[in-house]
Amino acid sequence: MEKVREIVREGRRVAKEDPRRVVHSFKVGLVLALVSSFYYYQPLYDSFGVNAMWAVMTVVVVFEFSVGATLGKGFNRVAATLFAGALGIGAHHLASMSSATGEPILLAIFVFVQAALSTFVRFFPRVKARYDYSLLIFILTFALISVSGFREEQVLMLTHKRISTVIIGGLSCVLISIFVCPVWAGQDLHSLLASNLEKLSFFLLDFGDKYCEAVGNDDTKEVDKRKKDFDNYKSVLNSKSNEESLANFAKWEPGHGQFRFRHPWKQYLALGELIRQCAYRIHALNSYLNADDTKVPVDIKHKLREPLKRMSLESGKAMKEMSMSLKKMTKPSSCDIHVQNARSACKSLTNLLNSGILKEVEPLELISLLTAISLLIDIINLTEKILESLHELASAAKFKDKIERPLSFEKTNAKSIVCVRPIKCQDDHVITIIEDDGNNDDTSKNDNCSKEVSNREKYEGSDTHVHIKCVSCGGHTCLCDVVECSR
Amino acid sequence: MEKVREIVREGRRVAKEDPRRVVHSFKVGLVLALVSSFYYYQPLYDSFGVNAMWAVMTVVVVFEFSVGATLGKGFNRVAATLFAGALGIGAHHLASMSSATGEPILLAIFVFVQAALSTFVRFFPRVKARYDYSLLIFILTFALISVSGFREEQVLMLTHKRISTVIIGGLSCVLISIFVCPVWAGQDLHSLLASNLEKLSFFLLDFGDKYCEAVGNDDTKEVDKRKKDFDNYKSVLNSKSNEESLANFAKWEPGHGQFRFRHPWKQYLALGELIRQCAYRIHALNSYLNADDTKVPVDIKHKLREPLKRMSLESGKAMKEMSMSLKKMTKPSSCDIHVQNARSACKSLTNLLNSGILKEVEPLELISLLTAISLLIDIINLTEKILESLHELASAAKFKDKIERPLSFEKTNAKSIVCVRPIKCQDDHVITIIEDDGNNDDTSKNDNCSKEVSNREKYEGSDTHVHIKCVSCGGHTCLCDVVECSR
Repeated sequence: MEKVREIVREGRRVAKEDPRRVVHSFKVGLVLALVSSFYYYQPLYDSFGVNAMWAVMTVVVVFEFSVGATLGKGFNRVAATLFAGALGIGAHHLASMSSATGEPILLAIFVFVQAALSTFVRFFPRVKARYDYSLLIFILTFALISVSGFREEQVLMLTHKRISTVIIGGLSCVLISIFVCPVWAGQDLHSLLASNLEKLSFFLLDFGDKYCEAVGNDDTKEVDKRKKDFDNYKSVLNSKSNEESLANFAKWEPGHGQFRFRHPWKQYLALGELIRQCAYRIHALNSYLNADDTKVPVDIKHKLREPLKRMSLESGKAMKEMSMSLKKMTKPSSCDIHVQNARSACKSLTNLLNSGILKEVEPLELISLLTAISLLIDIINLTEKILESLHELASAAKFKDKIERPLSFEKTNAKSIVCVRPIKCQDDHVITIIEDDGNNDDTSKNDNCSKEVSNREKYEGSDTHVHIKCVSCGGHTCLCDVVECSR
Repeated sequence: MEKVREIVREGRRVAKEDPRRVVHSFKVGLVLALVSSFYYYQPLYDSFGVNAMWAVMTVVVVFEFSVGATLGKGFNRVAATLFAGALGIGAHHLASMSSATGEPILLAIFVFVQAALSTFVRFFPRVKARYDYSLLIFILTFALISVSGFREEQVLMLTHKRISTVIIGGLSCVLISIFVCPVWAGQDLHSLLASNLEKLSFFLLDFGDKYCEAVGNDDTKEVDKRKKDFDNYKSVLNSKSNEESLANFAKWEPGHGQFRFRHPWKQYLALGELIRQCAYRIHALNSYLNADDTKVPVDIKHKLREPLKRMSLESGKAMKEMSMSLKKMTKPSSCDIHVQNARSACKSLTNLLNSGILKEVEPLELISLLTAISLLIDIINLTEKILESLHELASAAKFKDKIERPLSFEKTNAKSIVCVRPIKCQDDHVITIIEDDGNNDDTSKNDNCSKEVSNREKYEGSDTHVHIKCVSCGGHTCLCDVVECSR
């Protein structure tokens, strides 16, 4: 009884994880019940007879979860059946021209040679990736047709019936899978990459805080959720095979939604590879969170806190925006600024390190810190590469331009001025706030503003940004970070 | 014509990569030709008729490359056919009790419910991993039997014939795959892990040299080969899915060679995971070889050269020996010394770093160097974990003790003394050479030996080691390294 309850619970979980699974199950049941009408309906049975079972068989074997997989398998099956059928008939004719004792021997030799050759060809990597199933069906059909021909006289009739039932079975699968709640492998691949980017962004958004201080959060549920989000990146490490099979299926799919027929799926694999490379670095970085963390002197950490946090935060934001723009299929125009910010944080970290604050620290104590920094720099480089690859994808796949006005500008327009504590850029210039609402550039220069932050608006999420820019040296930074720091 | 030649070349490559593929192709051809004799041989055809095609079909679908996969599929197919056959007959009986119009409707409902339910269950992760094929066959057989029953009167007879032909087909696959040149998935998994370890060892053995100086080797062929060996580790990064499927197949296999029936395959997965973790670190380390390498001051590199090289060399040797011991299924007893050596090299590196040689270097210039060091330390830690896991595997799988006398001792006994340039340990003690042959400890102490290496025996490969030990501070090192350094 306990066992049954457990199975039901598991079933509920599986269905909740992806409700399309339930729909798919119904679809399979429907097509199968439909195709078995070949047996019940007299006129149909009269024309196909026992061969109707090939339609049933085709449905069971061909109907896969995604449209691409179904189309691929269906196409493979029909093409292989046609080709093997023709060859089988040929072999049968050739064999029947010899003597009565010679015929079975010749047929057996044909079957042997064909099966051995086709099985060997299945090992070719390029064949295995796309036409493995074709060859399986090829071996099967050839053997069945050439050999049954030995017993049945009307081998042409038999082949014709078999092929038409296979085509009917395959076609009904394809039609139902396309027109009834379709599951597109291409869409899945697209979402997989977007969610992978998001998983990395979760890590990076939190990393700075976690590395520089213990996050003081008493709500254990919240902590658990964050921890889960934080560790989510691990699934990215092994996503290669999944991505590859999805891309393989996607190639079979016709245009759908925003995906054209020849959507650049190859570019998705390149992007996925870069994301995975980044995940490897993050995995290495994660080990520095838990392990030798205590070795780094607290005061040093405190001094480096700001740029370190900004580096991870900005690259995390860039990832998040890339994930969003991939999801919405818009050009990732607003990500550049975050990458630029991360770069400038890198630069200020470099300047800090060069200023000699590490002189009195033992080199050994630096190892873990400098490694974390170096990995972070690596991650920022990779973020840039990912962005480049995403730009390429966006132009190859003709992503739209972002048209809607970003939320931030509307919010900032609501209040007339955002005053922050005096912020100095790297070269000690006082920074100017530009309210970038597109209409009027309200540029207010406060040479020595000492007021506190006047409006403690919540700058959470990645949608609200006010970018500030130093007029003298041109360095960008994001206001929300400065506000966070100044609290 | 060029295309054909290319295909032949590809075929040759595929066959050369794993000659068992050719044998497998012949086996498939053989079984198929054998099973099609059902059609040719009159007595057999009399008893099975057209149902003989189920035997052909079973062979084509069930015969996989490895014994485990074939057994698994065969078992799945037979069990599912039996079970679905029984249920199908039941459904047929139930339906036939109703009216003539009700029967097809009831049958269609049965088929629908069964197909939908089974398809849904296929999404359960645990079911998908091991019984996916079972469920496919279950759906198929149930639909075919319950539906054909509508037309054929002797449904019991039909089911009986179908099941026996499936059993015959499955059995012939299993027998041929076990007794004619068997390919064991377990053996493949075992070799895969050993070769993965070896690939990592190639990297680590070369890394020290590559990092500390350009390898001056003019023989481009040799360089190319080394580069290939060096980059081989990349295949380890994505070996997870391969390992998992091999382990799944291996569970079906009976005892063979040195593998018992319940060989601890799970432990292989744990070991594989650790190896992959190490590969991730190596991947990160590799990026420091090519990139910012020039930033590290040459004199610093020179000073740290020795312990750095020793760290990577010793961990590489440990990996290599682990790979050997896994291959030979002996306990990895001789690896501990290498791990210990790597640890002691770590210690001397630490001492060097603490001695203040980095004081005058800019912290920025240190980043790449310290990161490489930290990753190396990480790798050594992981090497230790891998060794632990291997020890666990060795005791769970009852690996033999290493009985043969290691090559090194015999070689060193052949000459009476091995004289090297005076070697000083960390604390400036002169080092004593212990010829560890187990019988007599020929301990010769040379307080200020200035002779050159007297015997330039080749200390290549990982089998010839003379371990030297400092009597005062107890530090171990491997003589072959010293000899290498003193050349």
